[in-house]
Order: sequence, then C-alpha cells, then structure tokens
Amino acid sequence: MAPPSAIEVQAVTDTSGVTIPDPLSAPVKSNEINGRRKKTVKGQWGTAAPADSVNFRQRSHEHKPKARRWDHFLSHEASIRKSNSLKKAAKFLGNPGIISLGGGLPSSEYFPFEQLSLKVPAIGHFSEAETRDSGVVITAGKHDLANDKSIFDISTAFNYGQGSGAAQLLRWVTEHTELVHDPPYQDWGCTMSIGSTSGLDMVLRMLSRPGDVMLSEEYTFATAVETALPLGVRVAGVAMDAEGLLPEAIDDLLSNWDVEARGGRKPHLLYTVPTGQNPTGATQSTERRRALYKVCQKHDVVIIEDEPYYFLQMQPYTGPNAPDVPPPSSHAEFLKNLVPSLLSMDTDGRVVRLDSFSKVISPGSRVGWVTASEQLLRIYQKHADVSTQGPAGMSQLILWKLLDEHWGHEGYLDWLMHIRMSYTKRRDVILQACEKYLPKDVVSWVPPMAGMFHWMKIDFKKHPDYPSKEIETIEEEIFMRVIDHGTLVMRGSWFYADAEDEHQTMFFRATYVAAPAEKIDEGIRRFGEAVRAEFGLEAYANGNGHAVGQ
Amino acid sequence: MAPPSAIEVQAVTDTSGVTIPDPLSAPVKSNEINGRRKKTVKGQWGTAAPADSVNFRQRSHEHKPKARRWDHFLSHEASIRKSNSLKKAAKFLGNPGIISLGGGLPSSEYFPFEQLSLKVPAIGHFSEAETRDSGVVITAGKHDLANDKSIFDISTAFNYGQGSGAAQLLRWVTEHTELVHDPPYQDWGCTMSIGSTSGLDMVLRMLSRPGDVMLSEEYTFATAVETALPLGVRVAGVAMDAEGLLPEAIDDLLSNWDVEARGGRKPHLLYTVPTGQNPTGATQSTERRRALYKVCQKHDVVIIEDEPYYFLQMQPYTGPNAPDVPPPSSHAEFLKNLVPSLLSMDTDGRVVRLDSFSKVISPGSRVGWVTASEQLLRIYQKHADVSTQGPAGMSQLILWKLLDEHWGHEGYLDWLMHIRMSYTKRRDVILQACEKYLPKDVVSWVPPMAGMFHWMKIDFKKHPDYPSKEIETIEEEIFMRVIDHGTLVMRGSWFYADAEDEHQTMFFRATYVAAPAEKIDEGIRRFGEAVRAEFGLEAYANGNGHAVGQ
Repeated sequence: MAPPSAIEVQAVTDTSGVTIPDPLSAPVKSNEINGRRKKTVKGQWGTAAPADSVNFRQRSHEHKPKARRWDHFLSHEASIRKSNSLKKAAKFLGNPGIISLGGGLPSSEYFPFEQLSLKVPAIGHFSEAETRDSGVVITAGKHDLANDKSIFDISTAFNYGQGSGAAQLLRWVTEHTELVHDPPYQDWGCTMSIGSTSGLDMVLRMLSRPGDVMLSEEYTFATAVETALPLGVRVAGVAMDAEGLLPEAIDDLLSNWDVEARGGRKPHLLYTVPTGQNPTGATQSTERRRALYKVCQKHDVVIIEDEPYYFLQMQPYTGPNAPDVPPPSSHAEFLKNLVPSLLSMDTDGRVVRLDSFSKVISPGSRVGWVTASEQLLRIYQKHADVSTQGPAGMSQLILWKLLDEHWGHEGYLDWLMHIRMSYTKRRDVILQACEKYLPKDVVSWVPPMAGMFHWMKIDFKKHPDYPSKEIETIEEEIFMRVIDHGTLVMRGSWFYADAEDEHQTMFFRATYVAAPAEKIDEGIRRFGEAVRAEFGLEAYANGNGHAVGQ
Repeated sequence: MAPPSAIEVQAVTDTSGVTIPDPLSAPVKSNEINGRRKKTVKGQWGTAAPADSVNFRQRSHEHKPKARRWDHFLSHEASIRKSNSLKKAAKFLGNPGIISLGGGLPSSEYFPFEQLSLKVPAIGHFSEAETRDSGVVITAGKHDLANDKSIFDISTAFNYGQGSGAAQLLRWVTEHTELVHDPPYQDWGCTMSIGSTSGLDMVLRMLSRPGDVMLSEEYTFATAVETALPLGVRVAGVAMDAEGLLPEAIDDLLSNWDVEARGGRKPHLLYTVPTGQNPTGATQSTERRRALYKVCQKHDVVIIEDEPYYFLQMQPYTGPNAPDVPPPSSHAEFLKNLVPSLLSMDTDGRVVRLDSFSKVISPGSRVGWVTASEQLLRIYQKHADVSTQGPAGMSQLILWKLLDEHWGHEGYLDWLMHIRMSYTKRRDVILQACEKYLPKDVVSWVPPMAGMFHWMKIDFKKHPDYPSKEIETIEEEIFMRVIDHGTLVMRGSWFYADAEDEHQTMFFRATYVAAPAEKIDEGIRRFGEAVRAEFGLEAYANGNGHAVGQ
C-alpha cells in the first residue's frame, strides 16, 4: 500500500482572500505537529523529569468549559492519597550549581547497556516481508541526550521515571490524543498507564467502594468483571443490540434503581468498549454514542471508555462477490471515517478513556495511557507513583524511537491504515467462511465493523435437546463437539457481565486475528460441521476438505 | 577486574574415597546450572505459555517442611479472588491439530519489529569504557523460537504474557533464588513483579485491611508509608540501632499491644529492608536476622523482606589510609560473604521477599520478582492477571538475552562483584570526605556496609537555638543552609515511619551513588561548611575550595 497523501488542511478564508489555517479550530495537520511543538530545553527530558501533559497540547482549549469535579465519587483511598513526599526536594534541583546527594537514583554507569537497536518497517512498507527486506535500523545510544544526538536515551529511559510516564512519550501520546479526539473541555490531559487492565483496576480503586454496582454490556470482557468482583464491585449487564449498549436500557435501569433490592447504591460507573466490543464485536454508532453520553449526563454516570480496538475499525463489509471499498485516500479521510469517541463528545470531563498500544503495536510493551480530567489524572498519577510507577522505560524508549523519532504522527497513521486494511482482509476471510460453511437456519451473525471478534448467535431452540436440557448444558455440548471436530471457539456464557442473571441467548465467539487465513477457513468449516452434527442437520456438501481458493 | 574462578564445589566424600558432590545439600555450582536444567520442549516457551516456578527448581526440596497457611490474614479481596475464567479454554490448546479461534491474542505479524539488538559488556569487562570498546552485540530476532535459534524472541515476548512473567525469565530468576537463598521450606516459588513498589502494594492488598498497623524501621522508605496509608494501614516505627530493627523492641511492642489504645488489631506484618536500609544504611547482621525471625515466629508476623540493595553489600571499610580488602576470589567466597537473607532462614514460609533488578541492572526494566509460599504466590499471580499483568515483555526479553543467554548465572555473579567493588569505591569517597570536612563534635555516622545511603546524625542539642526552637525547625534551618551552600541532602524527618511519633534524633541522608567522586567530595565539603555555620563553629581550615587530590 502506498503511503497516502498528507492530511488536508481545513482552512478558513480571511477577508484579504488569502487562505490561512485557523490555529484554534482546524484539525492539526498531522505532519505539522513537529513544527508546532514548543521549543524545549534539554533539562526537561532528563532522568525522572516531571512532565505535565497539558504543556504538550498544541491547540488552545481555554474557550472550552472546565471539567466537573468528581469528589462525590472518590473512594476513601483516593481522597486521602497524598503526593510523594520525597518530591519536596526536587524543587531545589534547579538551583544553579547545586550538587545533589539527595535522590537515590542509581548512576547509569551501572546499566550494562551501551546501545539498543531495532529493525522496524520503513513508512509505507509495513509487512513482515517488506520489513525484512527494506526495514530501517533505529538506534538509541546510552548518552544521546548528553551528546545532543537525541532527547531520549538509555541513560534516561533505563533509570527511574515518573508515574506519569516519560515526558518524551507523554508528549507524543498527548499530541496523538489531541489530533484524534480533541476533547471538548478545558482541563483534559493524559497520563501513561501500564496497560488498560491496570488502568481499570486503578480507576475502580479511585471511584468505587465495596457494594457498588458498575454498568457494562451484558456480554463483556471477562477480565473486567474479574477485576471488579474482588473489590466488592458487581457488574450489572445492560441490554445490547448490534450497535452495543442500549441507552434506554440504562435509563430504565437507573430511573428505577431500587437500592434495597439491588444491595448497592445507584450505579455511577459505566464500563464500556464502544468499538469492536469484546466479545460481541459490536460498534456503537455516532448517534448511539451521543445518546449514551446524554443518559450518563442525566444520571451523573462516569464513563470508563476502554478502547483497545479503536484503530481496528475496518472497511465496510461488501459481501463475498462484491468489489472491496478502496482504502482511505488520505489521513484526513482515514480519521474522518472513524466513529468519534465518547471522549470527543465529553463536555463534562466524565469520560475516563483507556488507550493501549497492545492491539496496534505490541501487547508486550505494557504501555497504554489514560485521558481524563486533571482532577482524576492527578489521583491516578499519585497512585501510580506508589504502585505501578510508569510503564517500563525500556518499552517507552522503544516506542518513542519508533513512533516519534522514526515514523512521526504521519507515519503512525499510515501504519494504522495498514492495520485497518489487514484486519479487513482477515475479517472478510472469516465472514466468507461462515457464509460458506455455517447452517444459516441455526447460526446467524452481524459482520463486525471493528475489533478482533466474530460473534455467532445460535438458535438453541432448534436443538434436539431443547427444552429438555438447559441452555448452558446445550452450549457446553456444542462447545465440546466443536473441540472434537478440532476447533476452539469461546463460549458466550464465559462473558456474562453477571453470571447470576438469566440469559435466553446463546453465542460463540471466534477470533480472526490469530490464525492464518487457511486455518480460519478450516476452523470455521469444522465449526459448521460440529454444529450441523449437534443439530442433526445434513453435512455441508463440499465439506470434506479445505476450501482454499473459493 | 579479572573474572574470578568458578565457584568451588562443596563436596562430600563417600566411603569409596571418591569425592562426589551432594546433589541435595551442596550449593549449586553456578556454572553447572545450565547442565542441570531439565530438558524442555518448544511448546513450553510459546506465547503466553503458563509456567510454574516450582518446575524450574533444580534441587530437591521434598525433605523440607511445608509452608504454613495464611488464610487467617487474607484480605476479603484476596480470599474471593478467582482465576481468570478465560483460561478454561487453554487446556484444549494441547489437542493435536486443533485450530484456535479462541484467544484474542494479536498475530505477531502486526508487531512492527523485525530485530532487537543490544550492545552489552563482555563478562569481566564491565565498565562503560570497556563496553564501548569490547562490548558484545546480542540480538533477538522476531521468529527465533520457530526457527530454533533461541527459546525466546520478539514474536513471543512482545505478545501477551502471563501474570507470573515469561517462563524463560521466570526460570532464570528461580534458579538464581535457589542458588543464593535456598529457602528452607518445601513449597516456595517465585513470580515476576513489575517492581517492588508494586509488590508491596499488592502484598498489602492481599494481607491487610483498613485499620491495620504494619511494623517497620522507625525511619523507613517514605514510599512504603505512602503505599500503606491510603489503604488505611498505618506504620508503627520500631526502634533501631546500627544493625537496624531491634527484636526486643518488636517483642515489647507486640507483647503489650493494646488494641483499644492503638486503634488496630495486633500487627501481623513487618516491612523491613534488612540490607543497606533506606534511609539509615543499616544492615542487619546474621544474628540480628535470626533473632528477628524468631520474634516474628513468636507473634505470628509475616515478614515483607524488601531487598533492593542485597547485592549492594560492600567490602569492609578500612579507613582513609589503610589498604583495601582484596575482592572476593571466587563466586563461592562472594556468596559466602553476603549476609544471609531472612528468606534463607524461613522454615515457616512467612517471608515474602521482594527482589528487583532496579539497583543492579536497570530501574527502567520495571522487572522484579516475589519469592513466597505457593499459597501466597497463587493469589499474587491471580491479582497480577487482572491488574498489572506480568512485566513488560520488551524488558523481559532484554533481561533474558543478557542474563541467561549471554552472561549466564556465572557472568551475572561477576557483574554483581563488579557492582560491589564500584559501590565500595563510591562509599569510601563519601566517608573520606566526611572524615575530612565534617565537625565531629556535632556530626557522627556509622560507615554503611551496604546500599546507597550515608546517614549522618546531628547532635542538635549543641545548636545555638536549642531548646528555644523545636527540633524540626532546627532541622529545616540546617537543610536550607545546606541548600544555600549548594548541596542537596535529604531531611531525616521525611522518613519517619509514623510522623505523629515524637522523635528525639536528627539525621540527614546523603547518597554516594548518583554524583561523580569529585562532586561527592565537594558536596560534603559544602555540607560541612553549612553545618559549621549553623552551629557557630570555626570554618574548616582548608575549606575554601575543592580538596581534590587530598
């Protein structure tokens, strides 16, 4: 795929007739970001240098409303948390000529690393094969900062850092967030996380107390439920359709909340994965998001927007024999085609957005970031300082060398478009296999528009053992039969938000991201075979082998 | 420094007169570890492969007692924590020929990294200058595991992993722990942490509840207090001498614990840094440790042994004009000279030991490990799975390439001896500066045997403003005067375990690890100058400039 042209500048025409960009409201031209960056001094990039995301924003946000305060939801733990006391000493480090015998940071003299190099794709040549052939070697030296070779190096990144993450990567992440989401309130910012799993854990410890109930999709990420339960926070599932959460269902639930019957105060937290939801693959439309945001305003609900799959939004699905939709022709078109985030609608500062590099760069980086109001960010950072600390400096250096110094924002958008097109292909493989092999009278699905998951509904009432056997027994039998046929898919019941609710639906989740195309095809063929056998249906006519090339 | 000879085998002589090593009780010859390793299969090193530390132990521990159970101390959170439910599916992944459309792990096809290289020291040539000249480049490829080039690679390390850490590094850490500590109970094991700050946070959430009191040194690591307080856990300081915690003081405190007056149940947790304690630099002797362990047994106290400085034990201090003690002549001598850990005396499994690479390799790895009984490890891992997850795979791959594939255990011990000798030199610089510049009638100290900190006691009763001013006011005035003279040291009061206790001692903490030798000397000269001015003493005779070369 050729690299697309640069993002187009939205411009305003002034009275002189000359076209000039509007620095306040025009989307940032992504390749201009480096030019717009504030002048920096070496000292701000040093070891464990404190950094504030707000200083890395490039547009003015002064004209926007301030975020609401969330004191009424803070846990005891969050409300008594203090700043790290040893930082009191840091303010004297700026004194000219001062010799610090204060902080116990080890000297980088004792880090046994002289140089780190990575072979990574050149922009526009992103596949594994291309990277082997035309990959670029990027290198971090130990003392690049002192030697004016770079603003980030081994000596700095491999030492202690701040809970907020390294200034270098925090700048990049803040710029990216401003470029993509431009939150419509004044005092937003970012802080690094060690991944969104930890992010959710820390947000829950900040905003909940035992006995609370958190809302979520009725089928949800099992780890989220398992993070919440030991904190005494139960998860209440909200009804969904193909576009995910139903705002009316939330309104109903909260308008009629019975504290006694429910055994917990009225929920003030919504955990949602708006894009390519796990496990259902559902993506909330723009209208759906606006309605959800409104209902959360009505009931004063804080939204935890967990968005690992945001950039796994794919091309529209056109069906087996229709031509593909052409890829986005520019960064502007690419960004415009993304469903807007809840963060981008957040005039109250009630969204805590969790972003992650896990699905678009590497889960093994354990680097993500949180975007929220200054009040919540400060608490998060203080907690990070005495628990997780910032993400591994080794990871931060690797990501920064790739994303900032090598690719830049432009190159990263190109990479994201590459991912978009690759996932589209994979998604199409599984959908075409499903259309070919699955008995449509018992299996139905909605083509996923984003994410990693294909969610298949089973009409369990057609099962020969229904209603003599319970729905979960039938689900287990189908699951085991699929295993016997040589495929592993996930049982829908593993994803119940609340396992004690009664469920009258049956689903299986398949992913199209891990196996190569021919295995996906064969895996679905086996799944179809197993379902047919379970339901006593005729076998697929050409079902005796691989269907490669069809 | 030349690499020392291999560790000597402690051997037993059998009746035939032939000398054979005793496989059960002899210390492992560190260069034999690779030879003793169990045969492995490729599958056990794959992406997110589960691993159990116990399987990586090389000696038999069957003859040892089993750890006690700690159910009576578990928090509610810990006791209801369940295993990650999606792992139910993992057991089917071993089925021959199975196609997994189950787990949503991204394909490494989309990790934009083809190769990672590091220039690191060759064994025995550890300084920065030597590394620049004779450093070795070690390289991890993307698919080294599949291509039989290595058992760890980018494709595996950069994907998701287990909360316990990658099997590859977990094996190394387990072997190292067995080699150095050989815990005297049966069911011990290790699990990776993302650093000991997080380790303490997670252990407290496992073993405490709001209202609890935890014991610690009366001057302690401020971050530990700040981790505990928001959880509702106060820290009670225990009196110390030059060897740290006083066991009799613990016995007294616990024997006479008054629940009503203290407002919390009798403490069952001791947080201690036995070696080179922060801030006091105190190192508990072997006898002291045995007595502490015994008093913890008597009162059923779980010991959190936080040991970042364990391998920063230094050569004995010989004074300004005496010859240095020669370095350890072998790995065996090096290991023998280390004060034994509390873990190595732990017949009950009541020690939770926190180890870290931060002080000996790199803080920016955010990799540490926890050694504890199987019961506590399981809970820790389950928590990690839904919060921190394992350490960053990027860091784990870097450490493993260096420690296992390049240096091995032998090379790592050589590195640790290099660190020992380097810290000894730095410690000697600060002590010699103190002897030269400080007024001994108001400043006194004990030469630190380990760690990063020099702890200087001030005889505040000799201050002209005593007793008209309070001790903390005088401390602040001295601190500010030292700043005015151009040096930053830390105030002892910042390290109170319990700021509400009354303190009749005054200290300042200086570190000798961050600044180069001439700055340490000058920093202490300024400190002495400031103290003399504060106390109205005559200025140091040669005190008008640098004292380099003296």
